[in-house]
Amino acid sequence: MSILIKSATVVTQNSNREILEGDILINGNKIEAIGKNLNIQDAKPETVLDASGKIAIPGLINAHTHVAMTALRGLGEDLPLQRWLKEKIWPAEKKLTAKDVYHGALLGIAELIRSGVTTFNDMYFIFPDEVAKATEKTGLRATLSHVMLDLPFKTSPEKESKKAQSFIGRWRDKPLLTPSVSCHGIYTCSEELLIAAKELANREKLKFHIHVSETRKEIFDCLEKTKKYPLEYLDSLGLLDENTILAHASWVTKREIAIIGKKKATIVNCPISNLKLATGGICPVCEYYAQGANVCIGTDGAASNNSLNMFESIKLSSLLQKHHYWKADAVPTQAFLDFATINGAKALGINAGSIERGKLADIVLLDTKMPNMQPLHNVISNLVYAAGPQNVTDVMVNGKMLMQNRKILTVEEEEIAKHFS
Amino acid sequence: MSILIKSATVVTQNSNREILEGDILINGNKIEAIGKNLNIQDAKPETVLDASGKIAIPGLINAHTHVAMTALRGLGEDLPLQRWLKEKIWPAEKKLTAKDVYHGALLGIAELIRSGVTTFNDMYFIFPDEVAKATEKTGLRATLSHVMLDLPFKTSPEKESKKAQSFIGRWRDKPLLTPSVSCHGIYTCSEELLIAAKELANREKLKFHIHVSETRKEIFDCLEKTKKYPLEYLDSLGLLDENTILAHASWVTKREIAIIGKKKATIVNCPISNLKLATGGICPVCEYYAQGANVCIGTDGAASNNSLNMFESIKLSSLLQKHHYWKADAVPTQAFLDFATINGAKALGINAGSIERGKLADIVLLDTKMPNMQPLHNVISNLVYAAGPQNVTDVMVNGKMLMQNRKILTVEEEEIAKHFS
Repeated sequence: MSILIKSATVVTQNSNREILEGDILINGNKIEAIGKNLNIQDAKPETVLDASGKIAIPGLINAHTHVAMTALRGLGEDLPLQRWLKEKIWPAEKKLTAKDVYHGALLGIAELIRSGVTTFNDMYFIFPDEVAKATEKTGLRATLSHVMLDLPFKTSPEKESKKAQSFIGRWRDKPLLTPSVSCHGIYTCSEELLIAAKELANREKLKFHIHVSETRKEIFDCLEKTKKYPLEYLDSLGLLDENTILAHASWVTKREIAIIGKKKATIVNCPISNLKLATGGICPVCEYYAQGANVCIGTDGAASNNSLNMFESIKLSSLLQKHHYWKADAVPTQAFLDFATINGAKALGINAGSIERGKLADIVLLDTKMPNMQPLHNVISNLVYAAGPQNVTDVMVNGKMLMQNRKILTVEEEEIAKHFS
Repeated sequence: MSILIKSATVVTQNSNREILEGDILINGNKIEAIGKNLNIQDAKPETVLDASGKIAIPGLINAHTHVAMTALRGLGEDLPLQRWLKEKIWPAEKKLTAKDVYHGALLGIAELIRSGVTTFNDMYFIFPDEVAKATEKTGLRATLSHVMLDLPFKTSPEKESKKAQSFIGRWRDKPLLTPSVSCHGIYTCSEELLIAAKELANREKLKFHIHVSETRKEIFDCLEKTKKYPLEYLDSLGLLDENTILAHASWVTKREIAIIGKKKATIVNCPISNLKLATGGICPVCEYYAQGANVCIGTDGAASNNSLNMFESIKLSSLLQKHHYWKADAVPTQAFLDFATINGAKALGINAGSIERGKLADIVLLDTKMPNMQPLHNVISNLVYAAGPQNVTDVMVNGKMLMQNRKILTVEEEEIAKHFS
């Protein structure tokens, strides 16, 4: 099956960051050609999308989230992280049924589609198979995991690893899903589990995903227990390499930033969640960037964000660097679009993140005729600082339309809402 | 003419902050009744809006903006305030024609409507009459001014005052517009002009609007010149009272915060613009709030934001307090909706800001069936942290529909966009 996207402003995100006026031809699940007045006689596209007045971007990649937690949006307000978890989230999570998790994930994914996201990186520990089923249903690309934590549950590293291994077995070799190995954090996982998890990831050639250096308490506790800062601790266990994805990594020393740069690990900035939970730390994106770390952006879950609006997270990721360093050019605006596209694809090891011949056809169209996208003096600046879910009209993943003219095609949004009313 | 809004979730913002399920009857430009199954036999509403599955809120009030600057969106990126002004904005403003200002204002106002704003407080110095004309055309409620500044233009305070006086003469006694007196700032206005401006405002019984304490440079320069901090300086000139609206007021001492609380002046937090221009200061909303100042929220102009998304500014206003004070409950979530409704109305002296009998009919409807508004565990939290322009379906100002089912009725958006392409 082939699709032709006609007359778009194409933000290619190729190595020259070219912005072209033209068409995109999709054949099967790949991008076959980009250019003006493509010769499509041989291709005979079955679908032609008129994208005049629209911008085509590579689908956004949300590098850290918990989509099922959308079911808990707004449950605990005005609380710091530890009280928020203990008083609101954990008690609510105990009551979640498989159906709640499934519908929470559907809801979260529908919100992601509306915010221009085509791929997300998730971890969850309650009915993670339901998250996978919801992802298959909606058609997004995702890296999913049964997140491990042994300390609070007083379970053994072996038991946790076995669950993770079995999740991997069930969800590998799927066209759009990739399992990963994830640990909740250094304060919820034993050293034995952390090592076993990374070994499992290496053995299975999968990504390793963990929350780290999110709060000051975590740093103090880690220093007391291990005499090392969290990222030094992870490094000492052999956990840092280019297949490791570190969510938050906000409260860090310059020495730790240098380690991350050297190991080419991925760090995921989740600015909204950090502000909302008053963790106090601003992720030093500016310094990670200078050190060559692979920086990505995540919304975190809707329970702590409280939305899954990727545009908002991209904008804030940039604004907080300007603010934190008192430097309006702390990191160039273009870099933040890179973090949410190319770098996300690199972190997850997928052949996406740019609109180029041979890349997977994960493409999003945005309406530029709406007032918030005018004038178009600077396309990249408008994407990073002015665009929002209201502009997203069409979403394609793997060559298949998931949303067309603002209508999601794979799930009924009103039906999902009914589960929660 | 009367309108019935049926079966809404009504966020009244009344003194008990009640949220009711029911109908709202509008007669002429006022709210006549709110309740379940209203007896509307006598009213015979000409229009009935089905608001089932929708939230009705009092229209948002954007307390500091420059709508015409929407024409300059994205022109200067990655620059600090002074370089941004001198290298990009001022040269671009020199070339603006009356038509550019008119269309820039139309564009900005269309964006405001789509973000649920029914009233805005503006200042501009280039063709301000065009801003007023555009506002009349679109039907929003607004407080507008010909902003004065004598130092950079080497003009006299008398000349500037005369221009402001003449603007007031042309735009007073309009149903939806109110002129105000505004000064650009303490570093662009002579002491003589500042005093003359406030005297003019008092004489004409109008609001006085000024930028203040936005950057550290401004504080240092003021200390050097006057031996006083900016708000102490304004106080010493007799400029602070409940009719004064101070935009930014971010770099302030505790002594200045106490003065503002005592004088009951309004401060307008513009969080996005402050971050974007890397001014470094976080407006201490938390402390102003504790001191009883009238706190409002503004987007500032789209040139420094780069959007006029009021929901984003409300969310960030709250998140930055949590972050800045390392305190997740720095200011309760409900307060931020108050800042953008009731407090805005108080600042501008208009009988709006809540959905109550006798109040002006400035009402906005939001679709809650979209995934980003589900579940509705907490309506206020969803409004403050999850809602966005994509949810705004209907906007009414003064009893008149400006947007219905997401279509703006008073201007053609595509026509405005054409001016800039």
